[in-house]
Amino acid sequence: MAPLERTGSSRSGVGAGSTTADIRRENLGRVLRTIHLDGPMSRATLTMKLGLARGTVGILVDTLTEAGYLQERAPEVAGRGRPSPVIDVVPQSAAVLATELAVDGVRLTVTGLGGRVVSRQEWGHEPGGVDAGVARLADELGAAGRRRKRAGARYEAVGVAVWGIVRSPDGHVNVAPSIGWHDVALGDRLREALGAGAARTRSVIQHVVVANDADLGAVAEYRRGAGRGSRRLLYLHSDVGVGAGLVWNGTLLSASGGYSGEVGHMVVAPDGIRCGCGAIGCWETEVDQRALLRAAGREPSSNTGLEDEISRVLEQAAVGDPAAYAAVEKVATALGTGLANLVQVLGPDRIVLGYYLSELHRVCPLPVRRALQQRGFSPEARDLPIVAAELGKDAPVLGATEIALEPLLADPLAYL
Amino acid sequence: MAPLERTGSSRSGVGAGSTTADIRRENLGRVLRTIHLDGPMSRATLTMKLGLARGTVGILVDTLTEAGYLQERAPEVAGRGRPSPVIDVVPQSAAVLATELAVDGVRLTVTGLGGRVVSRQEWGHEPGGVDAGVARLADELGAAGRRRKRAGARYEAVGVAVWGIVRSPDGHVNVAPSIGWHDVALGDRLREALGAGAARTRSVIQHVVVANDADLGAVAEYRRGAGRGSRRLLYLHSDVGVGAGLVWNGTLLSASGGYSGEVGHMVVAPDGIRCGCGAIGCWETEVDQRALLRAAGREPSSNTGLEDEISRVLEQAAVGDPAAYAAVEKVATALGTGLANLVQVLGPDRIVLGYYLSELHRVCPLPVRRALQQRGFSPEARDLPIVAAELGKDAPVLGATEIALEPLLADPLAYL
Repeated sequence: MAPLERTGSSRSGVGAGSTTADIRRENLGRVLRTIHLDGPMSRATLTMKLGLARGTVGILVDTLTEAGYLQERAPEVAGRGRPSPVIDVVPQSAAVLATELAVDGVRLTVTGLGGRVVSRQEWGHEPGGVDAGVARLADELGAAGRRRKRAGARYEAVGVAVWGIVRSPDGHVNVAPSIGWHDVALGDRLREALGAGAARTRSVIQHVVVANDADLGAVAEYRRGAGRGSRRLLYLHSDVGVGAGLVWNGTLLSASGGYSGEVGHMVVAPDGIRCGCGAIGCWETEVDQRALLRAAGREPSSNTGLEDEISRVLEQAAVGDPAAYAAVEKVATALGTGLANLVQVLGPDRIVLGYYLSELHRVCPLPVRRALQQRGFSPEARDLPIVAAELGKDAPVLGATEIALEPLLADPLAYL
Repeated sequence: MAPLERTGSSRSGVGAGSTTADIRRENLGRVLRTIHLDGPMSRATLTMKLGLARGTVGILVDTLTEAGYLQERAPEVAGRGRPSPVIDVVPQSAAVLATELAVDGVRLTVTGLGGRVVSRQEWGHEPGGVDAGVARLADELGAAGRRRKRAGARYEAVGVAVWGIVRSPDGHVNVAPSIGWHDVALGDRLREALGAGAARTRSVIQHVVVANDADLGAVAEYRRGAGRGSRRLLYLHSDVGVGAGLVWNGTLLSASGGYSGEVGHMVVAPDGIRCGCGAIGCWETEVDQRALLRAAGREPSSNTGLEDEISRVLEQAAVGDPAAYAAVEKVATALGTGLANLVQVLGPDRIVLGYYLSELHRVCPLPVRRALQQRGFSPEARDLPIVAAELGKDAPVLGATEIALEPLLADPLAYL
């Protein structure tokens, strides 16, 4: 997985022999990335954002238009006077087959340039275990890839979000507890099955990435959601279990290694209950959806279908039901303890809460703030912004889209 | 505080208009940095390490020799045949006044290029509080600076290591509990008192940095000690309290913010004792020297002078005294719990233990390994190398030396 911001040092830098071709490639990438992330804009706005000469920008836009990635069109809302045309992406010119391996099945969301969702499909887990699951996944991805190719995709990539520990950069799944996978070389197996990477211009799929779903959620919120502008973003989401992703100065921290961010397994309650991981008192046993149901006096019978019950408890708490509020407050207090630990260790400048945690925090924000105020050593820690995620359950697939598009955005003409 | 590795992106990069002067400056910096960090070497070795043309390296070395930073001399150990002369730094050509604000006084260690210690002095804390303390510090630093100037220093910088929370990049001390400082603009006050930075070529002191002592320890172990070659180094030291520094891909993580790394205040024991920070059950109440003495049945009467008692407990444990061993094992178990939490959250590829923790771990390594094996989700986490620090109590001042020399190493001819 690549750092999110290119520093210019990977291909270039003083004394490293940068050529005119390098500069052109870099600038084409900047143009495509800017429209992809910031949306349609006029040539004048684009020129201003890039700080390049107008003529240069014109040539770059024309090149990317000829390549099929950009288009010029009338703006959707006309202002006074004659509206300037805007440059926009051609969404279907690049496709990401963004896949989630969820506890109840596999969801495939096809996205395009601009981060737009093109289609969604899903299927249940294969009964035959890992091999059957990987084979089915490769089949579905291959078929979807061929459909996108016929629809005009010049670049196609697969991005898989896994709730578990995934090794960078090869996408080896160390463990995905919710689906019972251990040591599955998912990245390599998909690359082989899909013929990705080797002779990339002749393959349907050019690139495969597999990553932790909370890492991908963090990337999406950083680029397109509540994490925009943060320099040290801690993104946290939870339904069953807790996941976290860290984006530091534009770089996904786990990308440099691959097993960090397992914050759900910090021990915060040595006298607590046994976690699915085998240890006692892991944070996630105190803050996830099952913890809230237990606090509300309902032992969760399974790990799926909790959403309705959770909504009911949160709604009751929001309207002042004492038992429901006490349950929410207990879990919010545990959330505050763990967040304060993470703030002590990591020093984020913003926390984005996703999935059910944003609702929990909306209903009962005080325990979290109290934990930070009691235990923060700096004004920054005590007043740390804690905000709700903006992308909801789509965050991992939108993050997978960003990571999977990186090779294209780094070198847009390489895949024609 | 600058990232430890320059990426080439700060001054240069594709399209950013790098000039011949930029390239020369960068290459002069690389030559000086290489000899500074790797020690004396022949021109041939240097040429190989830098991957530049031999003639280019010759010109760069000659320029730095004329500037007074490098010297050519006979090697200390002659091999067979005629020995090649080696290039070495001129240690006294640059001086860092590396200062530690310790609980029992102030220690000033003067270091030079090559990371060599030139002299040491210390004085007790002034009775007049913060203002008197800062004034005395500025006086001593000014006097030491003038002495180093007379001894031939062309570049001089101050690096202050503080046990507490320090804000980057200005060196504002948010809190330094052991000396009772709160909200002291130490960096700015020293800069003003020493006339540093403004008209730098006429000042004695050109640069002032103030940083957390564990961060500086991490930098030193990463560059010159047990952390060399690590990509994600977690450095941890403890006497009274616990400090941690993280060096990720050559960059000090806290440099991007300034209040991370307060791992000692993770809550790991909600039913534990009250910490000096006001919270209950902070990790440092379970693992520092006071925790070991308490476990051994001796309530520590003060925060100083614990070293002898600690050594005695560790020695008794090492020779099999059951009570001492039980105390050590208890603290080592708490060390393992917190380290496992940090491994879950951060994913280091190496842990370096400094100060008394290296000895604790040498006497009783199993509880730490057991915690990682029970709670690590990946082979990397379970088998994570845990090694003893190599630089002992000098780590913070050697780290301060590295950070304070950065401006010189980035542009060696700027200070002539």
